Amino acid sequence: MSETIGFIGLGNMGHPMAINLLKAGYNLRVYNRDISKTQDLVVAGAKRGVRPRDAVEHGGIVITVVANDEALEAVTSGNDGLLAHLGPGGVHLSMSTVSPATARKMQQLHEQQDCFYVAAPVFGRPEAAAARQLWIAVAGKAEAKQRVHRILNVLGQGVFDFGEEAANANVVKISANFMLASAMETMGEAFTLGEKNGIDRTKMYEMFTQTLFACPAYQTYGKRIAEKNFEPVGFNMQLGLKDINLVLDSAKAAQSPMPFASQLSNRLLAGIARGRGERDWSELTRGISDDAGIE
Amino acid sequence: MSETIGFIGLGNMGHPMAINLLKAGYNLRVYNRDISKTQDLVVAGAKRGVRPRDAVEHGGIVITVVANDEALEAVTSGNDGLLAHLGPGGVHLSMSTVSPATARKMQQLHEQQDCFYVAAPVFGRPEAAAARQLWIAVAGKAEAKQRVHRILNVLGQGVFDFGEEAANANVVKISANFMLASAMETMGEAFTLGEKNGIDRTKMYEMFTQTLFACPAYQTYGKRIAEKNFEPVGFNMQLGLKDINLVLDSAKAAQSPMPFASQLSNRLLAGIARGRGERDWSELTRGISDDAGIE
Repeated sequence: MSETIGFIGLGNMGHPMAINLLKAGYNLRVYNRDISKTQDLVVAGAKRGVRPRDAVEHGGIVITVVANDEALEAVTSGNDGLLAHLGPGGVHLSMSTVSPATARKMQQLHEQQDCFYVAAPVFGRPEAAAARQLWIAVAGKAEAKQRVHRILNVLGQGVFDFGEEAANANVVKISANFMLASAMETMGEAFTLGEKNGIDRTKMYEMFTQTLFACPAYQTYGKRIAEKNFEPVGFNMQLGLKDINLVLDSAKAAQSPMPFASQLSNRLLAGIARGRGERDWSELTRGISDDAGIE
Repeated sequence: MSETIGFIGLGNMGHPMAINLLKAGYNLRVYNRDISKTQDLVVAGAKRGVRPRDAVEHGGIVITVVANDEALEAVTSGNDGLLAHLGPGGVHLSMSTVSPATARKMQQLHEQQDCFYVAAPVFGRPEAAAARQLWIAVAGKAEAKQRVHRILNVLGQGVFDFGEEAANANVVKISANFMLASAMETMGEAFTLGEKNGIDRTKMYEMFTQTLFACPAYQTYGKRIAEKNFEPVGFNMQLGLKDINLVLDSAKAAQSPMPFASQLSNRLLAGIARGRGERDWSELTRGISDDAGIE
């Protein structure tokens, strides 16, 4: 196993993913805007580029894990961008959470250059990335998915295929974030009703997450919400609002009303207005306590 | 084991529960408004009463599993009611889903007669009742809970204690129903967004219920919602609306705003207005498809 792949974006998520690829025997060419984050990877054998395009081998595979749509466009387009150097048959494996609209545009841009854009956004926190416990939704042309198949299995514990339209994987990803936020609001409302009736929130949490709702989404976030302990910050409220608004944009474009998503957008916006934008997004449930006149 | 206990209410839930108590060696005195439902129990050794009070032994234990608050009041109060005959030290184990307000009133009434009211609403469908797979939330005076401890363990697979205020168990129960309806609305919105983007609803269902939402609530209802196949009817939309409105009544009394619950009340009401009141409550998600202009 000595295939060389490019890796762009070495933040909280990208860095442990790159490490896992090195461990699996891949040669890496890495690029990150903040060069300090490439240090240990270079020590471990990765080559470092000074521009995004330096991470790319002609006709090869390049992975991007960046913060948002703008960052994806910045590393992809222009003279220094990866697309300028990817060439026919090359595969851009885009693992960031971006909007379906951006994914659609990216897929077209890549096809115009006879290369492939595969969307493969991941589900899981940095610890899950490090432990190769990510879940991955993938969508793109079949032959390109075939080429990245082993890479995805190195990075995650399960891969779900959503067809050839890259954007569909992003619809699934933002839908998952909507479903998480919705579960949080639901628990927040239920626990607060209990609390105002004199019931211990953590007892409700225990019953629900051992029975009907015995799953990671409820267990992980429910504990924070029951205990009103929102540390440490995993994914902040600003980012949460961004994703819920991607859902609403997509819903508007598709003409698919989503009243829960609308409520969540307002809930997160209120949290940000109250100065909680940098706090974990599970703290959106503090707005429920606020509205109920309690701490 | 030859203790005699009373059992009132032999509907879809009560009947299999009574059977399980007989199998566990209890002697039963049963009462049901529709006498035909007592037939096989009498064959199996139960004694049948013609009035609710006939099911009660002085100072004994009597279980009620009835449809709603009115039915509970009907079998409890008046000359023919169980309370007239329960006597000091007797325990009324009330396993129906009723309002916290009714539970509060019942507990007071029983205490005035020196007997006990224990609320123990159950979680699960009739199949779960038959298989002794119910989950039970219990609340009431400690000595009374102690007396019914073994009975609850015969009927369910797990018992969660919510203290001495009987009404609290009912708050937990209606909160669970709110959380179920909320999970349904959430999946309906997400799957419909996917569908309008050309994604297979069942693929979204599969990914979510194998990963973040791998729990009974999402797996059971999600399959129906993804496939838009709402048969058979387990719990209908009329009953769903009744429970969500109990949540909203309780939320109003406790001054605890619940925007998701408000949305669900309107969603269910719209479903009933469209003639779906007798259909399974998971069909509330058809309203999401309606609003998106699809089947």
